This record gives sequence, C-alpha cells and structure tokens, in this order.
Amino acid sequence: MKDDTRFLIIGLGLLGGSYAQGLKKKGFHVSALDIDPDSIDYALKTGLIDQGAVGFDPQLVRQANAVIFGLYPHALLQWIEEHGDSFAPGTIITDVTGVKTGIVSTIQQRLGDRVEFIASHPMAGREVSGVRHADCSLFLPANFIITPTSRNSEAGIQFVRQLAELLQFRHIAVLSCQQHDEIIGFLSQLTHVIAVTLMNVREQPHLVDYTGDSFRDLTRIAKINDALWTELFLMNKQNLLREIDDFAAELAHFRQVLQQEDVQEMQRLFRQSTQRRKQFDK
Amino acid sequence: MKDDTRFLIIGLGLLGGSYAQGLKKKGFHVSALDIDPDSIDYALKTGLIDQGAVGFDPQLVRQANAVIFGLYPHALLQWIEEHGDSFAPGTIITDVTGVKTGIVSTIQQRLGDRVEFIASHPMAGREVSGVRHADCSLFLPANFIITPTSRNSEAGIQFVRQLAELLQFRHIAVLSCQQHDEIIGFLSQLTHVIAVTLMNVREQPHLVDYTGDSFRDLTRIAKINDALWTELFLMNKQNLLREIDDFAAELAHFRQVLQQEDVQEMQRLFRQSTQRRKQFDK
Repeated sequence: MKDDTRFLIIGLGLLGGSYAQGLKKKGFHVSALDIDPDSIDYALKTGLIDQGAVGFDPQLVRQANAVIFGLYPHALLQWIEEHGDSFAPGTIITDVTGVKTGIVSTIQQRLGDRVEFIASHPMAGREVSGVRHADCSLFLPANFIITPTSRNSEAGIQFVRQLAELLQFRHIAVLSCQQHDEIIGFLSQLTHVIAVTLMNVREQPHLVDYTGDSFRDLTRIAKINDALWTELFLMNKQNLLREIDDFAAELAHFRQVLQQEDVQEMQRLFRQSTQRRKQFDK
Repeated sequence: MKDDTRFLIIGLGLLGGSYAQGLKKKGFHVSALDIDPDSIDYALKTGLIDQGAVGFDPQLVRQANAVIFGLYPHALLQWIEEHGDSFAPGTIITDVTGVKTGIVSTIQQRLGDRVEFIASHPMAGREVSGVRHADCSLFLPANFIITPTSRNSEAGIQFVRQLAELLQFRHIAVLSCQQHDEIIGFLSQLTHVIAVTLMNVREQPHLVDYTGDSFRDLTRIAKINDALWTELFLMNKQNLLREIDDFAAELAHFRQVLQQEDVQEMQRLFRQSTQRRKQFDK
C-alpha cells in the first residue's frame, strides 16, 4: 500500500469513523461522504477526516484510490446501483457488511472489471452508533474476515489484508462468502437471537435487584439496532433458521436430560461445554 | 451483631474462603472446618482463619456463635443430619446455597428451636473454585438474597442482613424460598443452560479465529462445575423446566417471525429487548 493512498469512507458511522481515525493516525489522506451534515461537520472539526461532503460528491469519489463502505446492506446496494460508474479506474473498494452471500456478487457484477470490490467484515462493534463514538481501539481485540470471490485478485486481497494490519486487528482470516455467512449465522446472529429472546421472554423490571453477572452477560447484546439487524438477519435467513433449529434441538435434549434426571449425561454435557469454552479464553 | 461474635465456616471453598476473608478484615474471630487438609493449612498460613480443623470438630462447632455453611446442597443436608445436635443453643446459622425450597424446611425441621437456621444466597461466583481463589471483593457488585420462613425471627433476619452489609454486598433483598427459586431458575439457571447448550451445539475448535465478543459473552458461564450444578438443577427441576419451556416458546416465535420475514414484528422485538436491557445497565 502506497503512503499517498487516498481513502474515501462512504457512510461515516461508528465503524466508518473508527476506520477514519485509524487511517489518519497512520498518516493517510482520508475523506468521507455521509447523508448527515452533522457527522461530516463533527469529523472535519475533530480532524477525523481531511475532506468531506454531504450526500454524493463525484469529485471526492473520483479522487479516491481506496474506498471503504460503512453503509447498511440495502443502502450499500442502492449506492452502488446509482453511483457505481463514478469511481476512477483501478479503485479498490471494500465494505464492513455483516453478510456477504447476498451482496458481494451483485456488487461485483454491477461494477465490472474497471475497479475491484473485495469484501471484508471487521468483527467489531459497540452497543452505540454514530461517528461521535468512533474509536479505532475497538479493533485491537477483534477478528477481521476477508471474503474474496473468483473475481478478486491476489493484489486486491493483499491490499485489504494490509488495511486490516495497519488498523491493528488481532487476527485476519480469509473465507468464502458462504463460509463467512454460515459462521456468522452461528457466532454472531444466533447469539443475538438468544440475547433478544432471553430479554423478551418475561417482563419483570424488578429482576435487576436479584441478578448476578450471568444474566447481564447473556443479554448485553439484546440492545440492538433494529433497522440494521433486521436487514442482516433477512439476508442470511436460511443459515440463521438452521442455526436456530440446531440450537433448539440441543436445548430440547438438555430439557429431556433434566426431565429424566439423567445425572451422567448432564454432567457429561457440563464437562464438554467447560472443555470447549476453555479454547475461547483470550 | 456483637464485636466478639465467633464465626465458624463449614466448607472452605471459594465462597467460604471469601466470607472468611471479609470477616477477618472486620476483626472477627473466624474458624473453619473442611474435609481437605490442604484448604485448612492454606487458610491458617495465610491468616484467612484463626482456627481450623479437618472433617468434624465438636469443640469448634460448640464455640461458634454464628455458622456459615459453604457446602454443596447434598453435603449440607448430610452434615446437618449427622451433626445437627452439636451446635451450642442460640447459634445462628446460614448458608450460601443456590436453591432453597428443597433444603430450608428440611434443615429447620431437623434443627428444631435450639438454634436458628436463616437461609441466604450470595449472588456471587467465579469460574474457578477453592479457597486459594478466595476474594471478598467479589461481593462488592453482587446481590444478596435472604429467604426467611415462618420459623425465623426478626433478629435472625437482621443478623444475616448485617452479615451481608459488613461483607459489602451491593444490594440486599428478602424473598420467600419459592420466590427465590423461581427467580433463580430464570436469572441464573436458565442462563447457564443456554450457555452450555450454545457451547455444545457444534464442535468447531477453529471458530475461535472468527468470533467477536458476543459469543464469548454468551458462553463465559459454559465453564461450569458439573457436580454442583447438577445438584442445583435437579433440586429446582420444575422451575427450570418451566423456564426452558418459556424460552423455547419465545425462540420459536422469533423463528416464525424470521421465516415469514415479518419485518414489523422483528423490529418490535428488537426495540423491546433494547428498552428492557437498558434497565439492567449498571
């Protein structure tokens, strides 16, 4: 990656803003587009970006060597549909989207071979949104997944890998779009479904006086962006339905073990979960 | 509570040891019984206790004004059955047990009116066990629940409340044994079932390379003491079965909403879980 690479961030929210912060810290030129004048104002005033514009600005787009989309899935697809011809030839483009199968091939077909769209997913987030919460330190403990297709070049993959390295992600992995969506269906989407369900199953405001850390831990992510996650779930519907079914079947097994007071099997399940979980300790 | 109250801790594990540490810090005389010579040795050498004995010691029991049981449920019941007559008249006795309905009345009947057994539950724990991990600072953010019955006196309840206050628990609540076990079935036991189930549903050691914080948060408590929690679950079986059923029904509702792509209802569920969870923020 050349030192004079000019980055453009389209969609300056929590993630877009954190990318901007991390790239500026490394000395890169960063500009941004956002539909919210407030976000652009804030980012210019605080030095998160060098240049910015509200809505669409053909000149900023044409001047960029590398573009990072921080938009919601449908907004990303719509932007590409409308403005996909505005990039300079050779521009490298990536995103932050939490699902891949439904969007990557559509975007690559629309963009053709003049530019390279190489999809990626930073596994980082907060229960808050907006550029005012931008903080590139949230990448330090996080995984980063690159999801190339047959249309991508080694140079393109390498560029996004370098981007993740300079943003100091903890671990960088390469998966197909299908693998990514299966794994995300389990690790991220199913866990959000469980947290939301646990919070919705009963309304008892006074429970806060009796709770230990367990319930707090399991429901932290029940504070969820309703518009974004509805899009993500629907775009990964088949994978998520299968994950819910697998989990429900395992839960039904535990219920039966408890019902039958099968002490041996219950203890085996506890030892298995204990052993498996230890691998996830940081 | 008198300054010269002599405490005896029976079962010197993580919780028993943490009680000992907290009581010693406040200047009380603390002795302990444990079946493990190592635990007693360690506690004597490090000053967690003033006196200790391995197994049963009638003199230490008779000298105590206040007794705290840190045993597993069945071991507690067995100890009371065998040695229930060894307390001095007027001794006040409490416990740390995570279920109440199945044990409190049994213990109170066995002990009669010579002494007072007033049950309580410190909602604190770690994924480690043993006196070497004793740390009374784990009580600072924790809730404490007192579960009196009709056999308990105001003075008895007041004594255990003072105990919780001097150990610096964040919040002290009084519930019936039935209320306690219902609430614990939801807040603590169901959450452990979910974490264990999520960890058991698939064996994919490489998943650690792709995970975000969500999966780690939801499975932290999947590291679980198999012997203790099997006892706790079986002693609260009916409540826990009902909690599993309610959760499974709510999960099935979410599945249907996703299957039918009911965007309105999905977003309503997300907004509801977000709003409810905000009440649990510390």
